[in-house]
Amino acid sequence: MSARNDTTDERLESWVPVARDSDFPLQNLPFGLFEDGGGAPRIGVAIGDRVLDCRAIAEAGLLEGICDAALLEAPLLNPLLAAGRPVWRPLRALLSALLREGGDARLLDAGAEHFLHDRNRVRMRVPMEIGDYVDFYSSIEHATNLGRLFRPNAEALLPNWRWLPVGYHGRASTIVIDGTPVRRPSGQRKPPEAATPEFGPSRRLDIELEMGFVTGPGNALGTAIPVAEAREHIFGLVIVNDWSARDIQAWEYQPLGPFLGKSFATTISPWVVTLDALEPFRAQGPRQEPQPLEYLRCDEAWAYDISLAVDLQTEAMRARGAAAQTISRTNYRELYWNIAQQLAHATANGAVARPGDLFASGTISGAEPGAQGSLIELTWNGERAIQLAGGEPRAFLEDGDEVTLRGWCERAGARRIGFGEARGRVTA
Amino acid sequence: MSARNDTTDERLESWVPVARDSDFPLQNLPFGLFEDGGGAPRIGVAIGDRVLDCRAIAEAGLLEGICDAALLEAPLLNPLLAAGRPVWRPLRALLSALLREGGDARLLDAGAEHFLHDRNRVRMRVPMEIGDYVDFYSSIEHATNLGRLFRPNAEALLPNWRWLPVGYHGRASTIVIDGTPVRRPSGQRKPPEAATPEFGPSRRLDIELEMGFVTGPGNALGTAIPVAEAREHIFGLVIVNDWSARDIQAWEYQPLGPFLGKSFATTISPWVVTLDALEPFRAQGPRQEPQPLEYLRCDEAWAYDISLAVDLQTEAMRARGAAAQTISRTNYRELYWNIAQQLAHATANGAVARPGDLFASGTISGAEPGAQGSLIELTWNGERAIQLAGGEPRAFLEDGDEVTLRGWCERAGARRIGFGEARGRVTA
Repeated sequence: MSARNDTTDERLESWVPVARDSDFPLQNLPFGLFEDGGGAPRIGVAIGDRVLDCRAIAEAGLLEGICDAALLEAPLLNPLLAAGRPVWRPLRALLSALLREGGDARLLDAGAEHFLHDRNRVRMRVPMEIGDYVDFYSSIEHATNLGRLFRPNAEALLPNWRWLPVGYHGRASTIVIDGTPVRRPSGQRKPPEAATPEFGPSRRLDIELEMGFVTGPGNALGTAIPVAEAREHIFGLVIVNDWSARDIQAWEYQPLGPFLGKSFATTISPWVVTLDALEPFRAQGPRQEPQPLEYLRCDEAWAYDISLAVDLQTEAMRARGAAAQTISRTNYRELYWNIAQQLAHATANGAVARPGDLFASGTISGAEPGAQGSLIELTWNGERAIQLAGGEPRAFLEDGDEVTLRGWCERAGARRIGFGEARGRVTA
Repeated sequence: MSARNDTTDERLESWVPVARDSDFPLQNLPFGLFEDGGGAPRIGVAIGDRVLDCRAIAEAGLLEGICDAALLEAPLLNPLLAAGRPVWRPLRALLSALLREGGDARLLDAGAEHFLHDRNRVRMRVPMEIGDYVDFYSSIEHATNLGRLFRPNAEALLPNWRWLPVGYHGRASTIVIDGTPVRRPSGQRKPPEAATPEFGPSRRLDIELEMGFVTGPGNALGTAIPVAEAREHIFGLVIVNDWSARDIQAWEYQPLGPFLGKSFATTISPWVVTLDALEPFRAQGPRQEPQPLEYLRCDEAWAYDISLAVDLQTEAMRARGAAAQTISRTNYRELYWNIAQQLAHATANGAVARPGDLFASGTISGAEPGAQGSLIELTWNGERAIQLAGGEPRAFLEDGDEVTLRGWCERAGARRIGFGEARGRVTA
């Protein structure tokens, strides 16, 4: 594991009040896009219960010597993403200094309130224009479970799985921000016993707990991004809920893969947590056997120790004032294929990654009971419904169900940082 | 078949000289994006061997009463696509009148040369920002052939195929314009007899002859575009070459579909031919059996009679000055699923189509020998190489091979219109 950089030192404190269990201490500084009242969306950085207004920082001339002010005055993260690590790192150092107790006093001197918004008052937006959205399938437990469920008469894990990070393209136009309602999709489904398919609302609506990385500068057509250069091209991570209609998916997905069973909505958390902030939580991933081919080999520790949880709150729970119930807990560290390998693979054929592309992990499932990132696994194809507190059973999602995905990092010697939430409520 | 509109009347002639066999008579008026020397790309309309400069038309105030000048001053087609048919139709009528012998004389009065560029001097660009790229699989002959080749021990046509237009998402970032060189992609491949996969340049590089439609205004999240409204949302068609590395594809594609075997390059022709121009060439598609589900039913004739050809010129042919050789001829009319059904299906789950999305047909293959849109079909998985004039055999593409896809419409009582070319040369 490489040395921590000083912006992650756990002793650092901000002059902005930050609760001990906040997702957003000074060590985090994730980037998002917010609106506060009218006007164009602005780039912001979460700090405690506030949002630092990056446009105001730029307009105050505080970026001089760091980067072009236009990068933070833009109504999207893409120009900043395109600028790459030579800008990301000094910018992070500046923001850390400006918000630090005993640091660069220019913000305080200029009147701090001018630069801060209340996080519970702003409205978050999808922070970048996502040119292409790729979804991998990198959890060996998930791929094995889905293989057993979708292809019961064949080997669960296909022969290619341990050789390459299997993935496919998803629909970028339906990536939505935390809190966006998810309308139950209609589509074709054909139960095994039916003679012909029928069209109607999905009866097997599911979630997929994932993390996704957001790309920086990207590559030129016909060139690849080797594993060793991945760090220059990955800005940070978000939580992803790849909502899935299992009945639509099961009927449509052969031979070209998932299409309408997935394309109706994908929810992301609003704050992109940078690799720099995640540095103290780097970890060794699982041993890869067989050894990957040369272009997928990496010596560095490329896993991240990120705790993940899925919370479910039903209509009935809300009606009686009951809190959401956690139905799954797992960890991102367990993924078989890491983000450097995913990016190297996705560009190995010369395909272009652009600033702001999203590459999601695929469902993250652990080996233990209750550590699966989808209902189809947790309930084994709906056969073993989850019994919620209050006596409600859940095989798949019902109208009114609200699902919240959460992610956070904790370890001794480091300040806890978090990702916030990716939340969505199912509507009829 | 609905009545022709007057802009397609075969008797109309332009004051711009147009050869009888030109792809671009006054009846066509396709839209593209061009650069002539420096400066931002401009929207243009092809007429004979010239390009009408739409930005100049806008700047001259000729759009008054038709649409906002900004739509044609934009450096991309997207704003015009978003404006929809209430703008497309009067705009087409205006352009037809301005270019017509004996029509609206304002262009001629203002000095026609100011508005015209030489088509062989301009550089064409991908005309729109393509938010999402979907590729269908709508030729029954192609799907049957590929089923036989990729799954020799199973039913060639899967059970879902006659019930829904099977499709998947491709990579938007690597859609390139006619003439862009295509670098042979590297990737993992595992011949059946090999124990482990290896990484290297594809040895089975192929083309796929397709047509794609470009969307107009699009729909809001959670709503669908019914078949009956498809015409309001489809601007026009282009030729598509969905380059495919068959060895990479065969190893990677289970279970989530094609990924790196396709994502390295997709070539489109530069001129978007509008549905209005194609009106005289509407045709009945094949009978669909079983009858499609309600949401896919359509009464209108939604096929188009478009002749298609694949030309191949090898390095050796170029060296001896030989012309390209046509290796396949087919027709777009044969597609089982039509574009209204494709769009209705792709949005049936509430997924968003945005202005400028590209939906490709999938490989277009006919039933007769020599009417297949890919080498893997024409050579039956490379087993029966094509013998080119000059004695060269071709199973899959070699470095230096140049492939040109062409499309055109011809019938008695209508002026011939064409799509131009989608051309690409394979580099090492």
